[in-house]
Amino acid sequence: MAVWNRTAERARALAAVGAEVQASAREALTAAPLVIVCVSATEDVRHLLEEASSEPFDGLALLNMTSGTPEDGRDLRNWAQAHGVAYLDAAIGAYPEQLGTRAARILVAGDEALFRTHQELILEIAGSSMYVGADHGAANAIDCALTGAFYISSLVSFIEAVRFVHEFGVSHDVLSDLSSYSVSVLDHQMKLALDRVARNDFTTDQATLNVYADAVATFAAGLEGRGDALMVQAATRVLRQAVDAGLGDQDIAAAVTLRPSAPGESARTN
Amino acid sequence: MAVWNRTAERARALAAVGAEVQASAREALTAAPLVIVCVSATEDVRHLLEEASSEPFDGLALLNMTSGTPEDGRDLRNWAQAHGVAYLDAAIGAYPEQLGTRAARILVAGDEALFRTHQELILEIAGSSMYVGADHGAANAIDCALTGAFYISSLVSFIEAVRFVHEFGVSHDVLSDLSSYSVSVLDHQMKLALDRVARNDFTTDQATLNVYADAVATFAAGLEGRGDALMVQAATRVLRQAVDAGLGDQDIAAAVTLRPSAPGESARTN
Repeated sequence: MAVWNRTAERARALAAVGAEVQASAREALTAAPLVIVCVSATEDVRHLLEEASSEPFDGLALLNMTSGTPEDGRDLRNWAQAHGVAYLDAAIGAYPEQLGTRAARILVAGDEALFRTHQELILEIAGSSMYVGADHGAANAIDCALTGAFYISSLVSFIEAVRFVHEFGVSHDVLSDLSSYSVSVLDHQMKLALDRVARNDFTTDQATLNVYADAVATFAAGLEGRGDALMVQAATRVLRQAVDAGLGDQDIAAAVTLRPSAPGESARTN
Repeated sequence: MAVWNRTAERARALAAVGAEVQASAREALTAAPLVIVCVSATEDVRHLLEEASSEPFDGLALLNMTSGTPEDGRDLRNWAQAHGVAYLDAAIGAYPEQLGTRAARILVAGDEALFRTHQELILEIAGSSMYVGADHGAANAIDCALTGAFYISSLVSFIEAVRFVHEFGVSHDVLSDLSSYSVSVLDHQMKLALDRVARNDFTTDQATLNVYADAVATFAAGLEGRGDALMVQAATRVLRQAVDAGLGDQDIAAAVTLRPSAPGESARTN
């Protein structure tokens, strides 16, 4: 394995475990069949490559693990296409200390054949890695959506929930038991929601969006006076938008069909 | 089992399965060792009992399953104490069709000895029922917090997340796999958060609240232009409040120590 870092001593630290330290980015770019880059921002990836060579990069295969937005992935793909670079965009779904283990996961987007060519190497770096789609924005989009919009939001919602029961003297064991139960119901409902989205069928004979919208407003009222309840208030607004868009008689997953609304414009469905 | 309903034919329907239909609420109140009441609102429970008898209710044990706020549970306890009624307050954590099965769960709050006396009957109605604490507001508080602030908020967050990846052509299988992974990480982090709350120790050598606050802002930026992202925006605000309150170097669970803020007043910690 060939390594290079803008701060030379960081690369040299890897010589001890057998990495061949390269003297420049240009040398690193031609030292291996797959070049993996991970810097601060997507803009830096482009600068680095353009500084390293004024020639086209024919034959260079690049896997970019730099954090970014979906647009960053798509922009760098456009640049790569114009510069003869075969390009995969990745999002790292792991803590640094997990890398090299089976638990670590890197999401990879771009040409699937290119991914399969380098799959073995990628799995060595992160054993639970996955190919997620041909759109070069897909890895960052999933990261933003699942890690950001879902995971962090849910964790914050849970912490808000725990804050609210604090004054009622509920024991740790009871809360832990009920929390596990809530998560298992959530897991089940998420699977049902994904199936409905895949079938594009949001009919239900169980709780409708109207029922959820009423319930969440009642729950929010029950929490009043115990802090700002920002998460449940946001959920109330989303469900109200969905009801206003005419989805009230459908399953809650129908909210997935709400489309982006411009400022001042109300949400609409497809 | 003795039954009574304000709409007589609803009670009569239960005669077919062996219930003794009572002619009035007053008769129902004296027909069994535990009286279970489930009507539209807590106010109705009080009216019903006051209409049924102008005498004190010495010896009456009441389990109230009517939906309400934590304050409703406490208010009815005060009324019950003044009227010689032994009182348990409950929240139903089940769909109607689950009742009578092991899957159904009723949360019961109030005097623990009174709960133990009637536990067997309650478990027959809902096999996963639990005693949650002595505070008569606890059952409704847990329902508002876990079902409302956590469960519905998380489900809405997930639907918002799925909406965002829609345009990237990610397959159902990939999304399903990654969603299950996200839930398992969430479950694990929720347990860690509860343990930290129980120990009141929010030190961490992993991601701090500062890291989460920065990450969620980056993810929110990655979702920009793809809809209102109300849930992740709310999470961003909660984490910013926690950072502003000086919790940035602690674990994300430290946000549980944020205390209610009056309108216009910024959040403060204990």
